[in-house]
Amino acid sequence: MVKPITPLLDRVDTPADLKHLSDEDLAQLADEVRAETISAVSETGGHLGAGLGVVELTVALHAVFDTPRDKLIWDVSHQCYPHKILTGRRDRIRTLRQKDGLSGFTKRSESAYDPFGAAHSSTSISAALGFATARELGGTTEVGLGDAIAVIGDGSMSAGMAYEAMNNAGHLGKRLIVILNDNEMSIAPPVGAMSSYLSRLYAGAPFQDLKAAAKGALSFLPEPFYEGARRAKEMVKHATIGGTLFEELGFEYVGPIDGHDMDMLLSVLRMVKARANGPIMIHAITRKGKGYAPAEEAIDKGHGVGKFDVVTGAQKKAQSNAPSYTKVFAESLLQHAAEDDRITAITAAMPDGTGLNLFAERYPSRCFDVGIAEQHAVTFAAGQAAGGLKPFCALYSTFLQRGYDQVVHDVAIQRLPVRFPIDRAGLVGADGATHAGSFDIAFLANLPGFVVMAAADESELKHMVATAVAYDDGPIAFRFPRGEGVGVEMPERGEILQIGRGRIVREGSRVALLSFGTRLQEVEKAAENMARRGINPTVADARFAKPLDKDLILGLAADHEALITIEEGAIGGFGSHVAQLLAEKGIFDKGLKYRSMVLPDTFIDQASPADMYRVAGMNAEEIEARVLDTLGIASIGAATA
Amino acid sequence: MVKPITPLLDRVDTPADLKHLSDEDLAQLADEVRAETISAVSETGGHLGAGLGVVELTVALHAVFDTPRDKLIWDVSHQCYPHKILTGRRDRIRTLRQKDGLSGFTKRSESAYDPFGAAHSSTSISAALGFATARELGGTTEVGLGDAIAVIGDGSMSAGMAYEAMNNAGHLGKRLIVILNDNEMSIAPPVGAMSSYLSRLYAGAPFQDLKAAAKGALSFLPEPFYEGARRAKEMVKHATIGGTLFEELGFEYVGPIDGHDMDMLLSVLRMVKARANGPIMIHAITRKGKGYAPAEEAIDKGHGVGKFDVVTGAQKKAQSNAPSYTKVFAESLLQHAAEDDRITAITAAMPDGTGLNLFAERYPSRCFDVGIAEQHAVTFAAGQAAGGLKPFCALYSTFLQRGYDQVVHDVAIQRLPVRFPIDRAGLVGADGATHAGSFDIAFLANLPGFVVMAAADESELKHMVATAVAYDDGPIAFRFPRGEGVGVEMPERGEILQIGRGRIVREGSRVALLSFGTRLQEVEKAAENMARRGINPTVADARFAKPLDKDLILGLAADHEALITIEEGAIGGFGSHVAQLLAEKGIFDKGLKYRSMVLPDTFIDQASPADMYRVAGMNAEEIEARVLDTLGIASIGAATA
Repeated sequence: MVKPITPLLDRVDTPADLKHLSDEDLAQLADEVRAETISAVSETGGHLGAGLGVVELTVALHAVFDTPRDKLIWDVSHQCYPHKILTGRRDRIRTLRQKDGLSGFTKRSESAYDPFGAAHSSTSISAALGFATARELGGTTEVGLGDAIAVIGDGSMSAGMAYEAMNNAGHLGKRLIVILNDNEMSIAPPVGAMSSYLSRLYAGAPFQDLKAAAKGALSFLPEPFYEGARRAKEMVKHATIGGTLFEELGFEYVGPIDGHDMDMLLSVLRMVKARANGPIMIHAITRKGKGYAPAEEAIDKGHGVGKFDVVTGAQKKAQSNAPSYTKVFAESLLQHAAEDDRITAITAAMPDGTGLNLFAERYPSRCFDVGIAEQHAVTFAAGQAAGGLKPFCALYSTFLQRGYDQVVHDVAIQRLPVRFPIDRAGLVGADGATHAGSFDIAFLANLPGFVVMAAADESELKHMVATAVAYDDGPIAFRFPRGEGVGVEMPERGEILQIGRGRIVREGSRVALLSFGTRLQEVEKAAENMARRGINPTVADARFAKPLDKDLILGLAADHEALITIEEGAIGGFGSHVAQLLAEKGIFDKGLKYRSMVLPDTFIDQASPADMYRVAGMNAEEIEARVLDTLGIASIGAATA
Repeated sequence: MVKPITPLLDRVDTPADLKHLSDEDLAQLADEVRAETISAVSETGGHLGAGLGVVELTVALHAVFDTPRDKLIWDVSHQCYPHKILTGRRDRIRTLRQKDGLSGFTKRSESAYDPFGAAHSSTSISAALGFATARELGGTTEVGLGDAIAVIGDGSMSAGMAYEAMNNAGHLGKRLIVILNDNEMSIAPPVGAMSSYLSRLYAGAPFQDLKAAAKGALSFLPEPFYEGARRAKEMVKHATIGGTLFEELGFEYVGPIDGHDMDMLLSVLRMVKARANGPIMIHAITRKGKGYAPAEEAIDKGHGVGKFDVVTGAQKKAQSNAPSYTKVFAESLLQHAAEDDRITAITAAMPDGTGLNLFAERYPSRCFDVGIAEQHAVTFAAGQAAGGLKPFCALYSTFLQRGYDQVVHDVAIQRLPVRFPIDRAGLVGADGATHAGSFDIAFLANLPGFVVMAAADESELKHMVATAVAYDDGPIAFRFPRGEGVGVEMPERGEILQIGRGRIVREGSRVALLSFGTRLQEVEKAAENMARRGINPTVADARFAKPLDKDLILGLAADHEALITIEEGAIGGFGSHVAQLLAEKGIFDKGLKYRSMVLPDTFIDQASPADMYRVAGMNAEEIEARVLDTLGIASIGAATA
């Protein structure tokens, strides 16, 4: 492995070291940070393109502002690797996204330079406004409290909460610096009217030559503050070519500027630092993947990559024997869409991640990428359902949280047949706690009239897609995990499952293991292990958390000494519904060894999914231990003795 | 009771009857609808001001468009009473918000004229866009599928999802009609930069004289459609005085127009109906409470009123012996705020409803009304907490659902000490299912690191405010219901409760009743009833759903034959956590008569809270029945026999 040569970067431990560098040196430093970022990600995989696009911005911000006293907040923070390299974490940068390594996102517990963690989009302006008001009201932090700076991408601007925050910031009028990092890409190319608007701003004029003006503005500094502020305001105003939309929301607007021109960035940031006395938006145009040809040329601009060869850009992909759940979902849906033209598909800026890119290619008029806008996505789907269509609103579990009220108020209360394919259910690996799909079973299964399914393997997923297409009596959700299936044989067509019916997978005795979701593989493994040594558990796949298969569950309870549920979700979900049923039926009155295995009461840091499930106590080994403990057997030897 | 004289209205059963009326008659009809609305609400109480503000708009929309084939969607639908009067529900209008009566909101199950129900704000554009795309893709409904029309207030425009929907609608470019009902009021006067922007649009010029232009536009009709569309587009463009923000988002903009000028409304709506070929926004200026002096002159413009005397406007208020929970919360917080200037308060457009109007008066710089923007409210609070403040983010239970992802991602994962006072927890009465606070226990108590409390009475609430002020180790929520307290003696100051400790309220035997929240009163009543007849239950107040008081719970389980939990929330919450504890500790292994009383698996329609809790089976009588059933006692006579 050839490491890049980085003489300037080698002398930088923290941003304080940037204060001694000339503007020319800062430009060189940016090049070195870029090389280091490429090198590190080639070893770890991760989010490459976003970081490369903000290398100059990262260097300029740390050079001009006084971090960590000034609060620099990276929206989503896919782009934070250069920031981590410059803020005392270079020595661990090759542990990114690994167990016990650096998080792939900003994280408060990791560094004082990460004042507000992120991983979901569009939170940065709200958080920055929180800091801005805290400073004014005498709040502080261990490292002080200075300016609040949010860096937000154009894709993130499609989310309503960014608008809510601007609406509030414009109203309050406090000093607040927002940098719009406009690379015309979120994960996919951004969609929506705001995106077109930004393109028009950008296309409407060449880059502003603000450099001279900005440098000139600094010459006002010795004057009394008030006068200086007034003039700076004028200056900024006249430097603007458009941006009326932001001005109408109460922001000063500067731009667009070339976000890779170090001299420009430094000039404008210095002016803004010296002069801003209200909310200000700096519109910087950048290129995602900038400076690394394989990323610049990739369709997704190197958004998320595996380990790769730096010279060729070729990614090293692990061989796989089974299709991903995402692909099985997407292809199954296409199969049905060919036969039923009422089927539509909705994604919130994740056409690739949800597999709906295939749907968009085949049926462009029936596929809707609404932007990073889960609230709208859900109600829009509800409207389509009310209008007689069969919308599939495909969101990751963790992002569905963004549309929860809409799920309750617009879908569930009206009992509209919106279909929710829920990808990334359960623990997800390298993206860590922020992307874990832990809560959806609990927050959906307690909604009256909802059908909630989980696929135990990729063939089951195919059945559930067919079931969701056929079911028209209300909302229906089916969850499935990130990653590859288990390689089971796939049916030509999915079967329509009977609503609220599970299945016995293995007949045994003494203890029944009732699984909801893909832990079924681990449960079966545990059962086989135990069976070889004298304990032969019954194994069942619940398929439905709602409605429950009461006959199945009460039968298992009646026929076994112990009943253990297991699910890839937090407390409050499947196991809680089973317990409620057992309580209602008086099953506990006479005694039943009942246990419910759920995700533990902690946010689990990134690692491989298998490692994360080990922490959660949900792999075959831990399941076996749980069975023995429940049965009061010290070890398997005792059982067979 | 003198009923208004309504000769025209008396001849209207459905909107089809409006088609025969002249424009002059329609103006008179509006006056009659206004009188009928005032008369009806004087008998029922409810949302008065909003409806009075849209009487002309309601008549004009039904006269010009072809409802129910055309989908008319009222945002929030506080303003739907005139619409209900005109759409076949006049005969039941005096049952508004009552048990078995009309809902106070639009409701799909109530009428085909309510194509999409609402009660939470800012969903209308998303839903309308769903219908607009459904029409294009061959979807339909029982009554057909024509135009989609959303009527949305300026207050509702502060919510991110309205922006998300406009962003998507502008991008798709489908025919869609949005009427911005700008009355410069939501429930409170609206805040935020968007609101100022709308005021500038309104103040910048007199009402547009679009009448002649609009009538002229219709003369193009015989021309080929394409040409007509082009000219209409020009027409609309030239009739515009501002509205660039909406235009930048891809909408045509018409306005502002006088929303009480029937002739103007009819002209513009007819033009739009004939000509619109993309998303169009009609900006109508109205007055909330219009035409009824007591409403126009009220601070809240008669937003929500009790029964009143039509002549004087005087509201008939029931005498109360106890302060409302809202007031107890607000005054307690003020008491602490006087001593701790790090305390801030955040409301999402509900300063009165949350009681924070008092805080805003006393400490204006520390109170933030962020608009209808729960997503932002939560993350803004998280930013303040990270900046060293003690934010109280006060939301109704049902509206907190809007900020759920932010609660998970920005607050819980970062373990930031945001305080969540949760008002309107449990069933709320006249506002019905959409406003029920049913899910917060479940969706908060499964978040690692959260503290979740519920007040059993108003004195407990005061303790919980003190506890939340003192607790700085992570997020903490405390829930309390709508309405008045129970009249317990109030302490001078709230005590700081020990985290995770409940209390025994009544010592008894055989059965333990463990309450979480204000059902405690009913539990005690049930216990007293039973005690008089030989069964003497133990009663405990859990105070905390998280962390659980394990000692208390395990002790109750050990000392009693039966343990019954009760909470004002859906399954997945307190009872589920108790069951999990009991399962983990092996308590069920040997038998325990355990039951968990939660809200039933159904959305409960409006009625008095007591009636709603009867449906839920949670009043003293049902609790008593549950105890007897659990103990296997046919009737209390058998127990004492």
